[in-house]
Amino acid sequence: MKEDLEKLNVVVPDTFFPIEKLAKYTHLGSVKTYPKGSTVVFPGDKMLTLGYVIYGRLRISTFFEDEREKLLYFAGQHCILALLFTELSEIYAVATEDSRVCFFSERQIRQIFRADDDVAIDVLKSYQSKINYYIKQVTEMDYFNPTVRVVRLLYKLCLTSGIEVDDCIEINIDLSMKDISEITGTHYVTVSKVLGWLRRQNILEKKKNKIIIRNLAKLNILTHETHILEATNEKIIK
Amino acid sequence: MKEDLEKLNVVVPDTFFPIEKLAKYTHLGSVKTYPKGSTVVFPGDKMLTLGYVIYGRLRISTFFEDEREKLLYFAGQHCILALLFTELSEIYAVATEDSRVCFFSERQIRQIFRADDDVAIDVLKSYQSKINYYIKQVTEMDYFNPTVRVVRLLYKLCLTSGIEVDDCIEINIDLSMKDISEITGTHYVTVSKVLGWLRRQNILEKKKNKIIIRNLAKLNILTHETHILEATNEKIIK
Repeated sequence: MKEDLEKLNVVVPDTFFPIEKLAKYTHLGSVKTYPKGSTVVFPGDKMLTLGYVIYGRLRISTFFEDEREKLLYFAGQHCILALLFTELSEIYAVATEDSRVCFFSERQIRQIFRADDDVAIDVLKSYQSKINYYIKQVTEMDYFNPTVRVVRLLYKLCLTSGIEVDDCIEINIDLSMKDISEITGTHYVTVSKVLGWLRRQNILEKKKNKIIIRNLAKLNILTHETHILEATNEKIIK
Repeated sequence: MKEDLEKLNVVVPDTFFPIEKLAKYTHLGSVKTYPKGSTVVFPGDKMLTLGYVIYGRLRISTFFEDEREKLLYFAGQHCILALLFTELSEIYAVATEDSRVCFFSERQIRQIFRADDDVAIDVLKSYQSKINYYIKQVTEMDYFNPTVRVVRLLYKLCLTSGIEVDDCIEINIDLSMKDISEITGTHYVTVSKVLGWLRRQNILEKKKNKIIIRNLAKLNILTHETHILEATNEKIIK
């Protein structure tokens, strides 16, 4: 039970709380297959459906005013796309792998909820997980400078997914600089500067599918700083 | 239906989507009365319950790292406190009016969902409304300067709750400068400066329980600016 609830607090907006139990009911919904690179939902599409990723992976973003695209989350297997109460989509969902998605209408969701309250509770958990994530995001953006937000993301990833290897901690994750930039709302160039600085300080190194933390204690100290790069010139950390 | 769904997009984090239908089931939960000023939930309290405001009003905040308090939302009548999957509370809920709150356990919520899928759908709507709000907040904080966020909040309030009176638009709302500061993540002093400037420009005036908009077109232009107060010295708006 406790372990289950910890899954509601994600560090990276990826799939949030996956709902395995909904897989039993995909025969009730409308199932479609999307090759890699194809669009699953366009902004403006008529929705009022709950999407459910049977397999594959989607990238969900939104467009903001003058065409600026903002990443919202990644949707892997058993992730739901909460569009049940959205008449016209405000999201843009693209398959980044060959994917299969089931769409349920409200009538079908009601039918499933009546038959299986475990699913209802799991859908609530999935929504709750999103709320938890976005509330944390607002707080982070309120209190921390973009450079510190990058460090905080890396530190939290280390705590949740880090594995001790020799005298380092490794995080096996395929997280691009662009992803880090979009998740933290930090400019790509700033992310690059922060990562470069962390590497030169021998604190952390980002490889293709892996992040290696060489000095967790220093990384932790940096999460409480107000700025990271202002200290760069002096190259001093207490 | 459509009108109902528009209620899922709130401008001020107040009650989100109220669930009238849950009032029928409060005999199943555990009901408590809280005089004005008393604490409903402390950080660290054991929860795993869904709170439901039968009447009254609560202020929900969270504490962040070194004791900084952050307003999350106001909970008026029929608002839910989504703590069903929260083992130890991270929120601080205070009654700002004499209030009565019902707490449901997961077992009770399952029982209600099985008996009444309308309630299940409305609970989902309430969660969805929170997700919508906090996603918008993250986007606002990502793209807009604090001064512009204040203007954008006032503009959106005008569109959703404004009433034409003579040649002005009035919003009847008891929203303090502190509330505006906390909702937009803008320093109290900055809020005060922006409001002073808007008044001097004859665009908008904030009174105790009312906001009067004298020039909506100019207010709209300001929502797309990158900074408000930098223009102050020149006192020029196109």
